[in-house]
Amino acid sequence: MEGKEISQAVIRRLPRYYRYLGELMESGVERISSNELSERMKVTASQIRQDLNNFGGFGQQGYGYNVKYLYTEIAKILGIDKSHNMIVIGAGNLGQAIANYANFEKRGFVVKGLFDINPRLQGITVRGIEVRGMEEMEDFIRANDIEIVALTIPKNKAPEVAERVVACGVKAIWNFAHTDLNVPPDVIVENVHLSESLMRLSYNIVKSKK
Amino acid sequence: MEGKEISQAVIRRLPRYYRYLGELMESGVERISSNELSERMKVTASQIRQDLNNFGGFGQQGYGYNVKYLYTEIAKILGIDKSHNMIVIGAGNLGQAIANYANFEKRGFVVKGLFDINPRLQGITVRGIEVRGMEEMEDFIRANDIEIVALTIPKNKAPEVAERVVACGVKAIWNFAHTDLNVPPDVIVENVHLSESLMRLSYNIVKSKK
Repeated sequence: MEGKEISQAVIRRLPRYYRYLGELMESGVERISSNELSERMKVTASQIRQDLNNFGGFGQQGYGYNVKYLYTEIAKILGIDKSHNMIVIGAGNLGQAIANYANFEKRGFVVKGLFDINPRLQGITVRGIEVRGMEEMEDFIRANDIEIVALTIPKNKAPEVAERVVACGVKAIWNFAHTDLNVPPDVIVENVHLSESLMRLSYNIVKSKK
Repeated sequence: MEGKEISQAVIRRLPRYYRYLGELMESGVERISSNELSERMKVTASQIRQDLNNFGGFGQQGYGYNVKYLYTEIAKILGIDKSHNMIVIGAGNLGQAIANYANFEKRGFVVKGLFDINPRLQGITVRGIEVRGMEEMEDFIRANDIEIVALTIPKNKAPEVAERVVACGVKAIWNFAHTDLNVPPDVIVENVHLSESLMRLSYNIVKSKK
């Protein structure tokens, strides 16, 4: 598996496989054929076989996939078999939503700290996590082995904060600010641009009316 | 332009063009070559030319693109030259974040109502929008010409609520619930699965360490 380059398109689909396999496990299903999985997931069976072949293919002809095995293997590929410490910068509604979302922790993403520039928010707690001032950020990152920084701050503040966290050695930014971050090539940025998602929706609305 | 099928990959990139063009306008830039735009956006100039050619190509050789014209045309393509009424179902942190985000309104997405099943949230207001009970939803959708419903509710509640809004004639759902919605083919669903985004990030962290 190692060294093999997997396309971003496949990676984009893996979390969805993971979700469906998790639901199958919860309902006690132990084996599933690519055809059955295809029906549930509304992708072709050949797409499923192709995607899962990227990882050596865990299925056997006429026998189907072992749900638990596949679930565990995908978790390893996605790196969610280990835990990742995270902080959230920006304790507004969105930052609080992320800190509050217990499901992230179940998948190994542990929110260790919450930071905000606004003194009125400092000291309040969200799911037991205290909101701290920005001046404490660097020490906190170093002391708590923080791997991921979620940025839920306005776009004009994001570049400066990104620079500060990168200077502390952080290599992964989950960026909700509506701007592209200029970071060194070894720093990974995953963008969630909500307004772009909304525009794709409105594009499809307009298109469907034609 | 009409009737021409544009690939989803291009559509996915259009909002980003729109954002860059907006920033150029703000800083007073009137014309830009594909090379300059390429440098800013960190995509190849040929990709830019190809993408924009989908819409008849607004540029002239050696003269560059008219920023404002291109900005306006992309807005039309994305359907954000008109306004779209929206409601948010689920007035937790995420729902409140969306209702609070004034920038959506600037792009024509107007949050008209906020709904929650929790009686303790009913009656509070977010940016002047009162949180209502779910029993008022259907009448509100019909009375307010609601086009988009944002679902910021747990995944186990999402299918039932989606069914209710579709029964009211809503054709566009912005789905934050971590599940796929089974809706009729003429209903558009745009998913924002935050945990999947986080998994892509962790995949890339693991990969970068190899």
